[in-house]
Amino acid sequence: MPEECHCNIPLPLKEDQSNCVFCKMLAGQSPVSMIHEDAKVAVFVPLSFVNPGHVLIIPRIHAPYISDLDDDTAMHIMKIAHRISAAIRKSSFRCEGINFFLADGEAAMQEVFHYHLHVFPRYAGDGFGLKYDPRHSFVNLPRPELDSIAHEIKTHL
Amino acid sequence: MPEECHCNIPLPLKEDQSNCVFCKMLAGQSPVSMIHEDAKVAVFVPLSFVNPGHVLIIPRIHAPYISDLDDDTAMHIMKIAHRISAAIRKSSFRCEGINFFLADGEAAMQEVFHYHLHVFPRYAGDGFGLKYDPRHSFVNLPRPELDSIAHEIKTHL
Repeated sequence: MPEECHCNIPLPLKEDQSNCVFCKMLAGQSPVSMIHEDAKVAVFVPLSFVNPGHVLIIPRIHAPYISDLDDDTAMHIMKIAHRISAAIRKSSFRCEGINFFLADGEAAMQEVFHYHLHVFPRYAGDGFGLKYDPRHSFVNLPRPELDSIAHEIKTHL
Repeated sequence: MPEECHCNIPLPLKEDQSNCVFCKMLAGQSPVSMIHEDAKVAVFVPLSFVNPGHVLIIPRIHAPYISDLDDDTAMHIMKIAHRISAAIRKSSFRCEGINFFLADGEAAMQEVFHYHLHVFPRYAGDGFGLKYDPRHSFVNLPRPELDSIAHEIKTHL
């Protein structure tokens, strides 16, 4: 349902295709530094990035979230991510490692609501890393608790 | 080539299957809280994690890096990642978003040298995030520089 402003006029949803900066790029309505295009996906350089060589892989269809994207396109994105990784490693950009990152939902740091996989080169001392709360993240749990987590997810598969 | 210790006896490579904790789990030689297994992949709960519901998806074959994994298995991992994401969202674990994360190489924070995709639930205030050096990461560059990056990667595709 559309959100509403204080005067009760419906606001466009952030997931709407008409607001989507990636759809505008794909339609040729805004500039893009394109690397690869095929029937299912596009690969381009984001406006700002972790390190030079960082790319985004997106589906052509406007799928805001994981749950909106068909398996075939998701699988093709992974195939292209592997090819792009090889190209980044062969390029002149400093690359001692590669990260894939995907954010699904605002709580997971998604900012553009059109599915996108980040693929970016890494090197020692580049300053990139993960932060987490050591009070509850990366704490070792006993096996019965791990088994219970496995059971809960399995139930919903 | 194997690394050597100071007495010139070759040390096993970190990528060797004989040292691989994931291969030991798959072979039933160490405990694992398994969620899903099929001909190509396994999904399990890691020993420690960002939030409850965090899982790892690994290929059955011992592929240390992106470049070692065949397209079919990589694509299947993505398909399973989508299914697991739906299961995590339906489960009792707090989940307002999902992240996928993959590390390829030590410089990219890879710690176990058997390809693995992290899939983990996120929620507002969970304390997880990214850190980076603002002197060179996420700095806006002019379009000609973005085009030049795109050209360099395209050349190596």
